[in-house]
Amino acid sequence: VKTELTSKTKKAVFDTEGPFVIIGEKINPTGRKKLAAALKEGNLDYVRDLAEKQVDAGADVLDVNVGVPGIDDVALIQQVVKLLADEFDVPLCLDSPNPAALAAALPICPGRTLVNSVNGEEKSLSAVLPLVKEYGAAVIGLTMDDNGIPNDAEGRLAIAEKIIERAAKLGIPADDIIIDPLVLTVGADQKASSVTLQTIEMVRREFGVNVNLGASNVSFGLPARDVVNIAFLSMAIYAGATCAITDPMKYTLHIRATDLLRGRDTNAMRYLKYYRKHPPEKEI
Amino acid sequence: VKTELTSKTKKAVFDTEGPFVIIGEKINPTGRKKLAAALKEGNLDYVRDLAEKQVDAGADVLDVNVGVPGIDDVALIQQVVKLLADEFDVPLCLDSPNPAALAAALPICPGRTLVNSVNGEEKSLSAVLPLVKEYGAAVIGLTMDDNGIPNDAEGRLAIAEKIIERAAKLGIPADDIIIDPLVLTVGADQKASSVTLQTIEMVRREFGVNVNLGASNVSFGLPARDVVNIAFLSMAIYAGATCAITDPMKYTLHIRATDLLRGRDTNAMRYLKYYRKHPPEKEI
Repeated sequence: VKTELTSKTKKAVFDTEGPFVIIGEKINPTGRKKLAAALKEGNLDYVRDLAEKQVDAGADVLDVNVGVPGIDDVALIQQVVKLLADEFDVPLCLDSPNPAALAAALPICPGRTLVNSVNGEEKSLSAVLPLVKEYGAAVIGLTMDDNGIPNDAEGRLAIAEKIIERAAKLGIPADDIIIDPLVLTVGADQKASSVTLQTIEMVRREFGVNVNLGASNVSFGLPARDVVNIAFLSMAIYAGATCAITDPMKYTLHIRATDLLRGRDTNAMRYLKYYRKHPPEKEI
Repeated sequence: VKTELTSKTKKAVFDTEGPFVIIGEKINPTGRKKLAAALKEGNLDYVRDLAEKQVDAGADVLDVNVGVPGIDDVALIQQVVKLLADEFDVPLCLDSPNPAALAAALPICPGRTLVNSVNGEEKSLSAVLPLVKEYGAAVIGLTMDDNGIPNDAEGRLAIAEKIIERAAKLGIPADDIIIDPLVLTVGADQKASSVTLQTIEMVRREFGVNVNLGASNVSFGLPARDVVNIAFLSMAIYAGATCAITDPMKYTLHIRATDLLRGRDTNAMRYLKYYRKHPPEKEI
């Protein structure tokens, strides 16, 4: 199954049989005070800087989230999308819980865009899916609904199915839906990651679609979070995840290694190319 | 399935439903000039040092290999085993291709020992399995035979079956056999690791036994080998590997994280304990 996004001249292909796709997570002010302050001031230099660094570090797609309390996110997401579309030839992932912000940003994206996200809540399905259809976008479907996040894989699978079915009714093919099985911190519940890994396997087996991973929640509250995140990334990729919203500066080499180990990097070309460009500062 | 080893007062449990077991690889002069020179001189201080460091870093079992060209390995393995048995309360893994060295070392091991290794070659089966039976040891079974290492998972599975059947004829239960599906470098053949991962899954499904991983071969010839080794460890553990002959100083925290993510570390106790004792020098 392939899901394609485009920018002015480039594309990003989410291919269930291909290499892993990296969606750069850093243009998101949640927990990033410096970015939140810059966005409040309307200073987009820091956004430009984050975009540049992430693309250089291997981001295939850039996530765009401008949610700062007290700021008009509709106007701001338009400004940021315009900047990114003008200066960076990379597909975008519009990350907003506000359908009005999505509706304002989708028409000014130069190519085929990923909407982040819809979920199984009635309110979300009825507001977001029509926008996805109207603009021919792809969409991330989160496995949560009006009752929250199910604590078992079967419950999450059922929500994935509901999203895929509701999308189909509007004529959105399953191939354009990337399911995100959600992950909670393993520090609070030791079964948290197993449920996510099992959901990944079941979604891939039942629906065959691409699967996204919000990889860094899993380590929240633990020390040496990168160690946990890296282990989780490899296991999730082996289980069937095909993309992640993650930090390319930290994890791209590791992801290239994982692709190589899955037989998806002929002659280790991508691994070696990335290594030469960005050798790790210090090996273990 | 559980395979138990013992030392004077402690045990190491290889449990297919339990945490991953670390066999410290460093008492092996292959590629370690300093150790080879020390063994040639009959200076065992460095062996003691390597044993101490590995146990401190989380080794559950110590591999013991004294193969230096031109040295009488029968006498030497006895000396080294005696030292380790006297000074370290940790089960041993006797690593020698020489049945005479195994036969000399097994009787002086204080507990239940792991023999590394038997393989599908007729010569190996007929020389090693009787020793395993005689001393009530456990044994690592390598999936290679007189024709070399099969390049597909089915071929390796067939050799695993042959080893298990031949052992059964001598009264050695399958639970005391740890299958090692072998891994070649992914730098030379991009399918190398996929074949190994598939073999791990098949061995676990067909025979249910413990599975060992010689994890570091996979990255031979590549830069940033630790990045590749760590990714491979996580994937192999997810596929069903239950122990590895590896470097505890480098990989234990990562292995603890993997156990945590598989739901095999209640309240992250083992991960946190190891982190506090050995925080990584530098996080990514």
